[in-house]
Amino acid sequence: MYPWQSVININRSSTTPLYTQIVNVLIREISSGRLAKQTKMPGTRQMSQLIEVNRKTVIQAYDELIAQGWLQSYSSSGTYVSDKLPLISPSLLSAERCQGRPHDPIRIKQFPYGLYTHKPKHLLEINSGTPDHRLAPMDWIYRECKSLTKASYGKHFLKYDSASGELQLKQSLSRYLNNTRGMHIGEENILITRGSQMGIFMALSLIVNTGDNVVTGDTSYDSADWAITHCGGNIVRIPVDENGLNTYELESLLTRRSIAALYLTPHHHYPTTVTLSAERRVHLLELSLRHNFAIIEDDYDYDFHYQGSPILPLASLSHYEHVIYVGSFSKIFAPAVRVGYLVASARMIEQLTRLRGIIDRQGDPPMEKVMALAIESGELQRHIKKSVKAYQARRDYVCELLTNNFSDIASFKIPDGGMAIWLKLKKDLSLQSHPLKQLCKAQGLNLNLSDEFIDDHHALRIGFASLEQKEMKLALEYLSKSITQLSS
Amino acid sequence: MYPWQSVININRSSTTPLYTQIVNVLIREISSGRLAKQTKMPGTRQMSQLIEVNRKTVIQAYDELIAQGWLQSYSSSGTYVSDKLPLISPSLLSAERCQGRPHDPIRIKQFPYGLYTHKPKHLLEINSGTPDHRLAPMDWIYRECKSLTKASYGKHFLKYDSASGELQLKQSLSRYLNNTRGMHIGEENILITRGSQMGIFMALSLIVNTGDNVVTGDTSYDSADWAITHCGGNIVRIPVDENGLNTYELESLLTRRSIAALYLTPHHHYPTTVTLSAERRVHLLELSLRHNFAIIEDDYDYDFHYQGSPILPLASLSHYEHVIYVGSFSKIFAPAVRVGYLVASARMIEQLTRLRGIIDRQGDPPMEKVMALAIESGELQRHIKKSVKAYQARRDYVCELLTNNFSDIASFKIPDGGMAIWLKLKKDLSLQSHPLKQLCKAQGLNLNLSDEFIDDHHALRIGFASLEQKEMKLALEYLSKSITQLSS
Repeated sequence: MYPWQSVININRSSTTPLYTQIVNVLIREISSGRLAKQTKMPGTRQMSQLIEVNRKTVIQAYDELIAQGWLQSYSSSGTYVSDKLPLISPSLLSAERCQGRPHDPIRIKQFPYGLYTHKPKHLLEINSGTPDHRLAPMDWIYRECKSLTKASYGKHFLKYDSASGELQLKQSLSRYLNNTRGMHIGEENILITRGSQMGIFMALSLIVNTGDNVVTGDTSYDSADWAITHCGGNIVRIPVDENGLNTYELESLLTRRSIAALYLTPHHHYPTTVTLSAERRVHLLELSLRHNFAIIEDDYDYDFHYQGSPILPLASLSHYEHVIYVGSFSKIFAPAVRVGYLVASARMIEQLTRLRGIIDRQGDPPMEKVMALAIESGELQRHIKKSVKAYQARRDYVCELLTNNFSDIASFKIPDGGMAIWLKLKKDLSLQSHPLKQLCKAQGLNLNLSDEFIDDHHALRIGFASLEQKEMKLALEYLSKSITQLSS
Repeated sequence: MYPWQSVININRSSTTPLYTQIVNVLIREISSGRLAKQTKMPGTRQMSQLIEVNRKTVIQAYDELIAQGWLQSYSSSGTYVSDKLPLISPSLLSAERCQGRPHDPIRIKQFPYGLYTHKPKHLLEINSGTPDHRLAPMDWIYRECKSLTKASYGKHFLKYDSASGELQLKQSLSRYLNNTRGMHIGEENILITRGSQMGIFMALSLIVNTGDNVVTGDTSYDSADWAITHCGGNIVRIPVDENGLNTYELESLLTRRSIAALYLTPHHHYPTTVTLSAERRVHLLELSLRHNFAIIEDDYDYDFHYQGSPILPLASLSHYEHVIYVGSFSKIFAPAVRVGYLVASARMIEQLTRLRGIIDRQGDPPMEKVMALAIESGELQRHIKKSVKAYQARRDYVCELLTNNFSDIASFKIPDGGMAIWLKLKKDLSLQSHPLKQLCKAQGLNLNLSDEFIDDHHALRIGFASLEQKEMKLALEYLSKSITQLSS
């Protein structure tokens, strides 16, 4: 006799109906081969006694299993496991939850990209430059979401819509970019994304074919490097100096090799924070037209400039269709606000809209409408003003701390803007990322920085925007203590 | 003399400071080559008279342009456009906004996928089966978002987090799937996505290499077909009959060719709404283990079943790691709620997390937390119960209307569940999608249905979930009138 009592475990506190619980267990037993086909089932009265449920419940379960084709009933002789099921070998199908490994695993790709996992939430953190969500008008944002969706009857924006984003946001944003960055674009030049990363990923997916050369700075943003690799691109690195990416080196490269695209953050180079000079901007545009490659301009920190005006993006200058511009609200408000944008020629936007449809169908209409409201109501500009003031003070403070406490072991230049300092460790200081991070964590500091920058470039990119003064003071104390301990 | 008055148009009502406006115009003139290098600029006094702004503003603008490297100042002779800029040919750079096309365009890919554009919002619409957002607790959802983010100080979930999704949702969801679908999974088996489409796209990206065979039903979900094509897969179609995908045809195919993956919607086949029989489920699993291919199970309408219990997904049966399961909250609440999930073995989830990091970095933490709350508070289950009742009534009503008014021109089977009817037009009725849609639109009906299904399969997939009775009555009247007019 099959061990019905132990196999069918009824959970009376579950919200799943009793008969469904019985159905589910029996399907699993049958499909796994443990309950062989043509097995005779206990009668409903006997089963109800065995597993201590009402007989009606057993009848309901059997009926369902007969309807679904797992059982067969013969009025003469009772109920059987269906003989129409294919022959199931118990050994073939018995591996529950991937244990035992009796089968070949599915062949999957191994992606050599960074793994963003859950962070220790209650440690102090130094990151490579994210905004402070505590300054952002999150209350306002979700109040507006709520009032938009309230009484959702007839709210068409809750249905499926264009894969290119909410029309209202594309309209407000194009006007905003024209006014603040001197662009000449319309709504047809905008694709709303879920942040800068998606803009970079999509631009590369549009341009790069397997084996194409794609230029980035030496060194550059790791997530952009991974996206280039994913699209089949061959990364070619060009040196970066105090005037940004060295376009003369690029010109020399172009005499030997053709390139499909170039990725850069000209406003403040990632990670070194230097600004691309006017001369090189013009030179780069000229090269892109002459050699016909696309420039992917990631302008994630345009709004954060503390000396003079922000420098106009490359996309604001004449460029035919050679600059694809990427920006984000995540970097202005908070990482959790997943709205960004990509600006390109209308024919590019059309192809990107087709691509977006198969990646994730579309964006988040209520949040996109609220971003439009933020522009239209001036909430965005108010928040930028407030953040620039706060971040400038934080920059000044962190520079003061670094000058006072790190000058023996590291050097840096004060950045004109952005959200981070590029702190170069002295050459004689030998330091590995892994033990440094371990030691920091032991003190209560999550050093959420690139291993590659520490190990290969001997530098830390210290984000200052997300920490208040007392937090930064404490974080740098832990860091300095850890460095001293490791290098002594 | 350069036409300064007409070139520099000051907008005094703009929020952009006057000096920034001047800076932006001059950079554009210089970078476009219209203002040649070494051009002598008017003195600040003269310029202030020409463009009618305060001289201090002009001085501030010149200083900024000198700091940025666009102008050079010689105390002896005045201010000039920098001679360090590369030689700019005005003809080379003068194409504003992609006009004139003097350059080669950038080589971009052409994606042969559907283009989801803005829909006429105020027309009545027949779609292929979306939920009714008017039934969804959108007020509750955004009230919870708001109360979560209120006083966001210290709300760590507003920072960057795991690319695999909010931990709380992964935990609640794995318990929920174990309870309702008899799965045996933990949080390590879940990747939170932005809806079913992203789950399909990511699963295919993990498995499919260029040239791999991928099986789908004949016919199948168009967006899944496009994603297979995008990943380099070669689509192989298997017939679908009244018991779903014909696994015996698949078995015969497998004697001749190997396949990497198979995509299907076994609960109700898309578009024909048939359910995969128990016998074929077991057969399919057995084939996947024997021939080592991945099954991508898109279970978007699991909760909508009107006869008996929903049928357990393939992923609930023993399958080693051969079933990748895709579900979505978009199909339960509203298209605008962009949260879905993918269930797979832990090693697959790790690779998918790496991939997610480069596609769009991560999901939307507040919304994901609210979905966890919806599960934990029972709001999800309450809403499902309410929707099932409403959709069942709508299914019965649409079947009644179709029986009464379409039996001369079309036939259909009453589906056990789901959100749509597969309406097969009679063979002698010749009808093309384009004129039919035009005619419907003229009457006020947006027929948002697949051209391919109409033109190649002679069928309409009539979604009944999103329309109330009186809306459906009107929509079918328009449709019937249009069909009659075209076929007479």
